[in-house]
Amino acid sequence: MRIILFGFGIVGQSFAKLLLSRSDDLYTRYGIKPRIVSVIDSKGYVISQTGLDLERLLQIKKNRKSVYEYDYNVTLKGLRDELDIDDLLSLDAECMIDVTPSNLKSGEPSLSYITTAIKHGKNVITANKGPLALAFPSLIELARYNNIMLKFSATVGGGTPILEFAKHCLKGDDIRALRGILNGTTNYILTNMENGLDFNDALNDAKEKGYAEADPSLDIDGYDAAAKLVILANWIMNRKVTMKDVEFSGIRDIKKEEMNKLLKKGYTIKLIAECNDQLAVKPREVLKSDPLCVNGTLNAVTFVSEHSGELTIIGKGAGGMETASAILRDLIEIREDLGKI
Amino acid sequence: MRIILFGFGIVGQSFAKLLLSRSDDLYTRYGIKPRIVSVIDSKGYVISQTGLDLERLLQIKKNRKSVYEYDYNVTLKGLRDELDIDDLLSLDAECMIDVTPSNLKSGEPSLSYITTAIKHGKNVITANKGPLALAFPSLIELARYNNIMLKFSATVGGGTPILEFAKHCLKGDDIRALRGILNGTTNYILTNMENGLDFNDALNDAKEKGYAEADPSLDIDGYDAAAKLVILANWIMNRKVTMKDVEFSGIRDIKKEEMNKLLKKGYTIKLIAECNDQLAVKPREVLKSDPLCVNGTLNAVTFVSEHSGELTIIGKGAGGMETASAILRDLIEIREDLGKI
Repeated sequence: MRIILFGFGIVGQSFAKLLLSRSDDLYTRYGIKPRIVSVIDSKGYVISQTGLDLERLLQIKKNRKSVYEYDYNVTLKGLRDELDIDDLLSLDAECMIDVTPSNLKSGEPSLSYITTAIKHGKNVITANKGPLALAFPSLIELARYNNIMLKFSATVGGGTPILEFAKHCLKGDDIRALRGILNGTTNYILTNMENGLDFNDALNDAKEKGYAEADPSLDIDGYDAAAKLVILANWIMNRKVTMKDVEFSGIRDIKKEEMNKLLKKGYTIKLIAECNDQLAVKPREVLKSDPLCVNGTLNAVTFVSEHSGELTIIGKGAGGMETASAILRDLIEIREDLGKI
Repeated sequence: MRIILFGFGIVGQSFAKLLLSRSDDLYTRYGIKPRIVSVIDSKGYVISQTGLDLERLLQIKKNRKSVYEYDYNVTLKGLRDELDIDDLLSLDAECMIDVTPSNLKSGEPSLSYITTAIKHGKNVITANKGPLALAFPSLIELARYNNIMLKFSATVGGGTPILEFAKHCLKGDDIRALRGILNGTTNYILTNMENGLDFNDALNDAKEKGYAEADPSLDIDGYDAAAKLVILANWIMNRKVTMKDVEFSGIRDIKKEEMNKLLKKGYTIKLIAECNDQLAVKPREVLKSDPLCVNGTLNAVTFVSEHSGELTIIGKGAGGMETASAILRDLIEIREDLGKI
């Protein structure tokens, strides 16, 4: 299976490590021999039609250089700016994997990469929320029209198979509503506030630990959770919605005193994304004993099903290797579906 | 799809109601037209080769009578004692569903029903832990040899798809260990003890609420959780084990004082079933903030995966409709697999 890999940061490198460590197993259990025929990072790209050596590529990144420095069995290489995406996606390959950083304003450049890949008949796996949050209905339509598979397990819950769970494990049942903690950074900050910190100290601690960005607004103002909610609402509950349909607010205005008062009554405040008669991301009072009420950077989603009752799934919402494992699950599903044809 | 239904108590009746309420949907979404050709309850049996009327059957049970009283379009009926199981299972049918009560000592009579059904080429769905806890490896072997499907989603977690989750949602990953709260009755009692009751008062309250049997020993001495652990260990972790391989103890000896002391340190006591280097069901100290630490009659299982981290799934562990929904999932999977041939 030939793969074009867009992005080679933490997730991309973790994916390469995962392929290396599981290569025997992937072949014997699933009949997959993955071959990366091209990698694109922020500075350059490299193409090898016979397949790139992943250990060499990882070594280059360890030395903080671009994949452009790769120099073994190369078909073509160059700087990112000089790359013609249309040419690149004409390469012989079954799958394009997109692990570029998310852009929740325009979805670019990922949105263009994905639509171009689909038009060239490549199956697509993306870990990037941006394009889906802004254009889920039309991307699914485009993929169907071109008869290709578009997979995105890694966009919600990191390694926690939230999307697969709802889609595969509840056959014959109907999901009526869902609510969840979809952003680990805000959950870490709120957990800090439960432990007595005020918002600013809690945020600074999250920055120090590497959980929050220098500009943390995507997380703490609710954009990231809203983007994931859009994906869940479309995929699990067949709503044709995008970011503009979500009513959302963040956690900036939560006061330590308010938190303390609730804690004494057995409640706490969590940033809850929910899809029922409304589509919203808001701080809510939650019972401490509710299964959804997880601490630290954990993510959790509760599905309200018609016959099986309320079902909750909890796991790490981020992490390079966790996200890479979700991409690998998508790759195995694509392989299984290609096998059926 | 023709079905022979063994057992017509709460779960059997809930399953009949579920089929009635979803009949249109089952046909349009999954191509299933279920037809119950025989029902056996504790007193009698009835056979109708053209299919039994489920509403009439439910009405009979509402009047606390046996299915033996059914009198419409009957091919054959009689008392349970006079029933030749071998004859019954020679009926034309694709599937036998077993919702008879569990027997964790001998697995009977369910074990004989299941083996006879398999030998007659019927696909089997069982909600009965007994046969699997005592003979999982040999039942799976027998099913494979006869090329039939043996499904048992309802045996662990009621309506919570614990078995499917581990099997279908973690492709390309390895589950290294699991631990869980698999018995709702003991969890309800322990939650009562957290709230200040001593063991006997907590047990009596569970009896009053209908969560504990008159003889509660299957639950509180750990048998029920051990049986479910055997099923998980075989199915998820490929261990060839039965009840005799589980080291287990119950919750009778837990003291209120001990619980109080732990609570002050942020811990509580839960009856934990675990499969790692050992296979055990024992009361354990668990952090109150651990995702596994659910209250009341809830069930929860944490899977320790190699790449996706720790994943927890939480839901109701019992209930007629919840268990029926798990049986329906199995039926849909059988239909999908039959369709492939």
